[in-house]
Amino acid sequence: MSETPSASLANCGDLVQLVGLRHKSFIFTLEAGKEQHTHRGMLRHDDLIGKPWGSQVFSHNGSPFFLLQPSLPDVLKNTKRATQIMYPKEIGFILVQMGLTPGKRVIEAGTGSGSFTTALAYFLGATGQVYSYEIKAETQEVAKKSIANLGLSDRVQFKVKDISQGFDETDVDAVFLDVANAYDFLHIVKKALKAGGYFGCILPTTNQVIKLLTALHRNEFAFIDVCDVSLKYYKAEPLRFRPTDRMIAHTGYLIFARSVTVDKTAADEGLLKEIGLSLTGDTDAQSSNTDFDSESEILD
Amino acid sequence: MSETPSASLANCGDLVQLVGLRHKSFIFTLEAGKEQHTHRGMLRHDDLIGKPWGSQVFSHNGSPFFLLQPSLPDVLKNTKRATQIMYPKEIGFILVQMGLTPGKRVIEAGTGSGSFTTALAYFLGATGQVYSYEIKAETQEVAKKSIANLGLSDRVQFKVKDISQGFDETDVDAVFLDVANAYDFLHIVKKALKAGGYFGCILPTTNQVIKLLTALHRNEFAFIDVCDVSLKYYKAEPLRFRPTDRMIAHTGYLIFARSVTVDKTAADEGLLKEIGLSLTGDTDAQSSNTDFDSESEILD
Amino acid sequence: MSETPSASLANCGDLVQLVGLRHKSFIFTLEAGKEQHTHRGMLRHDDLIGKPWGSQVFSHNGSPFFLLQPSLPDVLKNTKRATQIMYPKEIGFILVQMGLTPGKRVIEAGTGSGSFTTALAYFLGATGQVYSYEIKAETQEVAKKSIANLGLSDRVQFKVKDISQGFDETDVDAVFLDVANAYDFLHIVKKALKAGGYFGCILPTTNQVIKLLTALHRNEFAFIDVCDVSLKYYKAEPLRFRPTDRMIAHTGYLIFARSVTVDKTAADEGLLKEIGLSLTGDTDAQSSNTDFDSESEILD
Amino acid sequence: MSETPSASLANCGDLVQLVGLRHKSFIFTLEAGKEQHTHRGMLRHDDLIGKPWGSQVFSHNGSPFFLLQPSLPDVLKNTKRATQIMYPKEIGFILVQMGLTPGKRVIEAGTGSGSFTTALAYFLGATGQVYSYEIKAETQEVAKKSIANLGLSDRVQFKVKDISQGFDETDVDAVFLDVANAYDFLHIVKKALKAGGYFGCILPTTNQVIKLLTALHRNEFAFIDVCDVSLKYYKAEPLRFRPTDRMIAHTGYLIFARSVTVDKTAADEGLLKEIGLSLTGDTDAQSSNTDFDSESEILD
Repeated sequence: MSETPSASLANCGDLVQLVGLRHKSFIFTLEAGKEQHTHRGMLRHDDLIGKPWGSQVFSHNGSPFFLLQPSLPDVLKNTKRATQIMYPKEIGFILVQMGLTPGKRVIEAGTGSGSFTTALAYFLGATGQVYSYEIKAETQEVAKKSIANLGLSDRVQFKVKDISQGFDETDVDAVFLDVANAYDFLHIVKKALKAGGYFGCILPTTNQVIKLLTALHRNEFAFIDVCDVSLKYYKAEPLRFRPTDRMIAHTGYLIFARSVTVDKTAADEGLLKEIGLSLTGDTDAQSSNTDFDSESEILD
Repeated sequence: MSETPSASLANCGDLVQLVGLRHKSFIFTLEAGKEQHTHRGMLRHDDLIGKPWGSQVFSHNGSPFFLLQPSLPDVLKNTKRATQIMYPKEIGFILVQMGLTPGKRVIEAGTGSGSFTTALAYFLGATGQVYSYEIKAETQEVAKKSIANLGLSDRVQFKVKDISQGFDETDVDAVFLDVANAYDFLHIVKKALKAGGYFGCILPTTNQVIKLLTALHRNEFAFIDVCDVSLKYYKAEPLRFRPTDRMIAHTGYLIFARSVTVDKTAADEGLLKEIGLSLTGDTDAQSSNTDFDSESEILD
Repeated sequence: MSETPSASLANCGDLVQLVGLRHKSFIFTLEAGKEQHTHRGMLRHDDLIGKPWGSQVFSHNGSPFFLLQPSLPDVLKNTKRATQIMYPKEIGFILVQMGLTPGKRVIEAGTGSGSFTTALAYFLGATGQVYSYEIKAETQEVAKKSIANLGLSDRVQFKVKDISQGFDETDVDAVFLDVANAYDFLHIVKKALKAGGYFGCILPTTNQVIKLLTALHRNEFAFIDVCDVSLKYYKAEPLRFRPTDRMIAHTGYLIFARSVTVDKTAADEGLLKEIGLSLTGDTDAQSSNTDFDSESEILD
Repeated sequence: MSETPSASLANCGDLVQLVGLRHKSFIFTLEAGKEQHTHRGMLRHDDLIGKPWGSQVFSHNGSPFFLLQPSLPDVLKNTKRATQIMYPKEIGFILVQMGLTPGKRVIEAGTGSGSFTTALAYFLGATGQVYSYEIKAETQEVAKKSIANLGLSDRVQFKVKDISQGFDETDVDAVFLDVANAYDFLHIVKKALKAGGYFGCILPTTNQVIKLLTALHRNEFAFIDVCDVSLKYYKAEPLRFRPTDRMIAHTGYLIFARSVTVDKTAADEGLLKEIGLSLTGDTDAQSSNTDFDSESEILD
């Protein structure tokens, strides 16, 4: 997960994953002198340092493990679950939809398990900045430790604060809310966002989405998109290729919008409708972006 | 889309989106002295430079447009379609699944429309590098121009080359193939990838996936995942909240695997099975990662 | 579609389907002396009567057609669309879920396009009875004609009536509502249903479903199920087997419940909860049937 | 489930469902003098006979149960599982797609758990006939007993027979295969089917579907449809309306086709293509029915 090309040997400070029997794995950072305890015995970090990636190693009682660099989904999925976490399927889509590329400044609330915080820290890179708000100190403590273990502490500013008191930042590129009553904070979101900035939110129930949509229309957010992401896995068997039997049916609804400031008194009514705004305050204006075939052009 | 905080005014060199009536929009870069032609008349770049984001502007014949910074999905979706393009739903998931964070070095083939090239250039950042291979010079030319227009040329090395001749790079973090017969190139992919590196692929038909799975098993790729991503949009109407009537049913199957080099003669058989490898060359070994509930821990 | 074994020749009174070029087909009943007009010329019924099923026939201007017995989905999908129609995917699930087997007596409202009316008439058989209510006379007229053309008139009693005035029948096996404000009529549904009888409903928006759920809890309906049915089609090409590109994302939410009359004052509270009823009038009781793995046994 | 209007009291010979605590239920037929043993004690049939539907009854040790008429899905889902069973979502769609209305004569193979046999027996009614083939006598014995318990024995002819030896019936309306190598029996299916008759099949893997499609094209089946049915359940809570967390991702692919006999030497090539047949024996002809918007008309 480092930004410099990985060498072929496990080094001090590297994030490693030990894969053992029975689908059990352990993700941690190599430190000289430390011990790693598992369901099948103990391994000394000193015995792992310098080993080639992919090596088979053994615990003190002879149980075999593979020494690997963890994948990003492994890291994200396996944060300590203080709260419900988002899945890679949601995280990836949010990153693209909200344009969360290197260098961006992004607010998230609440911190929760720190799963999305971790993703933001990786994808915004060393030039970006995450501001992570959480009302419960203990919850944030878990995420803070997890981010520290991943060596990403300088990319995240953790704040224990009730967001109804406002965000400390302004002109940020994006705000993502993972709080039950997101619809109560849109005026606060609007103050923190730069012109054209991105708002995103995940909500488990349709009742919450309905309230949020009304609030978005009232707070002059445009380009509203509501969607959910499904991931179907298939069994990787070439002679019996088929989907797995069960799948995750629901994590939450994703809602996206942009904070655009337009002079509504002077604007063309049809044009306002194009972007999902309404002169009349009609809360049932149609999103303009739901049509996946809308025509556009990049010109040279 | 720039990495420095955006000012509130449209400047020379900024990527802009003009949103006009009838779901028609235009994405281009502001340059002094240039003209932008649309379905509803012409606009001078000089009249747009210095305008606040969100301004209403008019073409020479009085047609109204909004001046906005394009969203990343708008940029990705609206590359000139030389070939079938991937959607943001696939791109986001690939980014997370393959750990395509800032600073990574990544090979893609073919270049195609340049949609995924663009996403890579944005997400790998200024410290990363994209090597984009394409067999048809004309196809790549379109993508090259599009990347240039976005100001990302220094992040992408374009190569017109038949990949059966091999890749020029070694020790890359990831290789992504969007070619019909991906299963023919796995030994070449393996040579380019670093130990533990990520292979990814998109294939439209089950027949291709079946062939690829066999080839992955034969070329000692582990941690195979096969999946597809669905996105359901909802109408953003708070009084009549419901899904849209139609949706995209299929773009392609996504296949992921890691190139792990393990000493199979010495390795524990159960452990090999954990990661989807087989001593016997059995091509029907089960993927180890399909179980979304597999247990893991981050330790501190 | 007849209940007697079909002979191999098209006879007078048979329902036939002419399949012509460009995915155009015509469904009608053979009658001596009549003419059938198509997008590619006219065919005389007399020339079709006596022809083997599967014959190629020609219109007066030489355009080719196949003479076939229409499939049930063809018949259902191609009713004249006075209103939005249900798809076979919904109809089939409703039939099983509500136990709509031969001999049952079933109320539906509104008649709408008559698509579900037609399905009921076929599946309840000659021993069953459909009572179809519709507030708009003109709408029902279209469905009535369609049912007559299919020779099913004796199985359906059509009634032009505002259902807020009540249904004329009692002790029916099932009531299906396809009306926007279904939640306003549950006390009326309850009067018409026999003990343990089935209520079913299709509603396009979540707002309507939310209102209906509250009303169901208040009117002592138990075993509430809410679901939607998706159908993914695949291209029938053995060398390129894959899903179609687009699919229908949403027709409506299906809601099912049973009218059980239990003595709530005497009943065990846990037992009431099992079936989704609540002593306290709590409207947020969990459905008991959503767990697809609930254990049951057929004993001999 | 009976075809005569149900009285409000449980009678001898009625199929009943006892719903007890902890989502446990029991489905059986009332017989004078018998006893029903449950996870929470024993109940005498004589104590249940004459009780109103919806009554609360108690086992010998005081455990409470509700006395109900079972729903059809309850009956179908809870057949003794000799094999993998189809779900109501598949069964309902098959019934409509293959036109399995009262009075039809239908072959199924294998009998399996008898779940689909049961559905057929109910929906074809007293005037229909099911011919159920199974190679394993013990497997069929379980289904036979289950059908007998439901009082449907006169509607099903059970046959222990290897279907590669042929079916005993001809001119049947439909044949449904639930066997792994369905593609080996299409010439046998064709002999049993009437002209225009329906073939249906459920197969778990894409490899099997690919083989079946090739076989269908070779055996002159037309109107091929391949699809799968998904059912998403929602939590019936009006204040927190949302999907359930998990769902069934895959039961099997459904394949449908019709046995049409056309004179290929004389037929218009474009017309053959319309119905998915090919003069050249090209096995990759496109299904004609996958377009859910194909135009058709019912004429009066």
